[in-house]
Amino acid sequence: DPSLKVFTLNSNKDLAQEITENIGVTLGKNSVMRFSDGEVQINIEESIRGCDIYLIQSTSAPANEHIMELLIMIDALKRASAKTINIVLPYYGYGRQDRKARAREPITAKLVANLLETAGATRVLTVDLHATQIQGFFDIPVDQLMGVPILSDYFSDKQLDDIVIVSPDHGGVVRARKMADRLKAPIAIIDKRRPKPNVSEVMNIVGNIEGKTCIIIDDIIDTAGTITLAANALVEYGAKEVYACCTHPVLSGPAIERIRNSKIKELVVTNTIALKEEQQIEKITSLSVAPLLAEAIIRVHENSSVSTLFD
Amino acid sequence: DPSLKVFTLNSNKDLAQEITENIGVTLGKNSVMRFSDGEVQINIEESIRGCDIYLIQSTSAPANEHIMELLIMIDALKRASAKTINIVLPYYGYGRQDRKARAREPITAKLVANLLETAGATRVLTVDLHATQIQGFFDIPVDQLMGVPILSDYFSDKQLDDIVIVSPDHGGVVRARKMADRLKAPIAIIDKRRPKPNVSEVMNIVGNIEGKTCIIIDDIIDTAGTITLAANALVEYGAKEVYACCTHPVLSGPAIERIRNSKIKELVVTNTIALKEEQQIEKITSLSVAPLLAEAIIRVHENSSVSTLFD
Ligand SMILES: Nc1ncnc2c1ncn2[C@@H]1O[C@H](COP(=O)(O)O)[C@@H](O)[C@H]1O
Ligand SMILES: Nc1ncnc2c1ncn2[C@@H]1O[C@H](COP(=O)(O)O)[C@@H](O)[C@H]1O
Repeated sequence: DPSLKVFTLNSNKDLAQEITENIGVTLGKNSVMRFSDGEVQINIEESIRGCDIYLIQSTSAPANEHIMELLIMIDALKRASAKTINIVLPYYGYGRQDRKARAREPITAKLVANLLETAGATRVLTVDLHATQIQGFFDIPVDQLMGVPILSDYFSDKQLDDIVIVSPDHGGVVRARKMADRLKAPIAIIDKRRPKPNVSEVMNIVGNIEGKTCIIIDDIIDTAGTITLAANALVEYGAKEVYACCTHPVLSGPAIERIRNSKIKELVVTNTIALKEEQQIEKITSLSVAPLLAEAIIRVHENSSVSTLFD
Repeated sequence: DPSLKVFTLNSNKDLAQEITENIGVTLGKNSVMRFSDGEVQINIEESIRGCDIYLIQSTSAPANEHIMELLIMIDALKRASAKTINIVLPYYGYGRQDRKARAREPITAKLVANLLETAGATRVLTVDLHATQIQGFFDIPVDQLMGVPILSDYFSDKQLDDIVIVSPDHGGVVRARKMADRLKAPIAIIDKRRPKPNVSEVMNIVGNIEGKTCIIIDDIIDTAGTITLAANALVEYGAKEVYACCTHPVLSGPAIERIRNSKIKELVVTNTIALKEEQQIEKITSLSVAPLLAEAIIRVHENSSVSTLFD
């Protein structure tokens, strides 16, 4: 279908290439350069008049650069008479700033939603929002795909015995439950609490993990503090071995060092965020969301349901 | 007046401090930090409910970082119940992307205007837009201040003899004319043309500059190619000495090296863009726009006319 065109920017070039191969189209031609002063210079190098555009970009670090590239490209597409501008955001940056945790804070996740719409986005396709409520920050259709099936299938293929799926905190129990259902395994929860103010946290484990193979699941691993402390606690409390997995490997600051030095046997992530070279260590396995996103793009383009992708 | 509050972000802290001293208020308290992954973390640390906020930030390099800081701060101010959010943009970044010069280009200057309004800006105060048309990109009031009076006064105080004001291209003649009127001097224009395609440009000078003190004026000096070539041509054609001036010292890439090696005797700029340490060379004089912006803020706040500031 010549009206379907896929473009990308600087965040996830390899993923975009893989998505186009899965769909069976070639990547649209555009340049994304910088003027001498660092301002973004974008040019679309083929006609897109009347086309349905699927623009692939994660707003991963450097988030501000990636967001501005995205907004400027949307502006260019709009002015070049695209019919629809469908933003494929494998990782939705600023998703953790989704509420006022303190007085006089911004809600940047909502701001970004407004900016995308203002620029001219007509639809959003994304993977594992930090909070599902972010869908409601948009007034355009948002389809959210799930990382759990991809991560679950990987562990299922490993045929591990006697596993238990572990949520690293109370907020992640629903996600752990989904994975546990797919792997027909029980769940456990890391229950952190602070006995008194200014006393360090105590890690309690709700559920039976003794002698078992634990798989900790989270949506984002950023500095890897939570997940490595959880892994070490699990081993201390008698777990046989500990795997960890997440959809979005933010992996900032001390993350790689912490993972390397932790009791985690293997960390399984997806390529919603491209790993930098120094992040590609042996302990980390990256799974591709390209087949999932390609299928979702085709379904959106054919006006068929995306939700059945989760079965 | 306790309802007037001035805040700033990371682009122009010294200028903001100077503006508050001119107005006679203290700078509003807010933090602008980064999370571990580089996302902007902003918190407003005093009540601003019902206040008129003047937020000072140039969208100078790194433009994308400065724009996102600005948008996120506007979002925070809006949600903290500011009465009005007046954006003081000493330098309006992306101003040169103000039209489609080629097919399928973005118009980023318009995009940025839309983003500021979407975030919640209620008024803009700026200095020397690259094109005055950018005022029309906004649906909120925009007041534009001029750098010419500040630059002219500096040269007037120098009491130079026999001066001529030079526009480095045809686009800058109106600006040169304004300065010439203030200094009661004639003008000249650098008239570049390419005799044939693929033959290098010839610099012609329209107007009499022989034996005279030339002052070249531009709005932005970026890589300094235009201005240094112009200065050298003026000297070649018999100018006695050459000064240069501009409102916005972008000074990217080879700019400092070019200025240092050029025939320019002194380059006079303003602090709409803060000079980095390596840009603070002896040849460059920086004049402050703080008194002008302070006066403009007071007038806006008192609902009196800003345009009389140009007399
Ligand atoms: N990029 C970020 N890195 C670390 N923390 C963040 C980031 N963005 C937002 N937050 C904070 O994370 C908290 C929300 O995280 P959560 O409780 O996991 O939903 C809020 O208090 C935010 O201030
Ligand atoms: N940051 C920038 N640095 C250099 N050139 C730019 C920049 N932004 C836009 N332009 C280009 O500058 C031209 C407009 O400059 P002007 O003719 O001086 O108005 C357009 O062709 C733009 O593509």
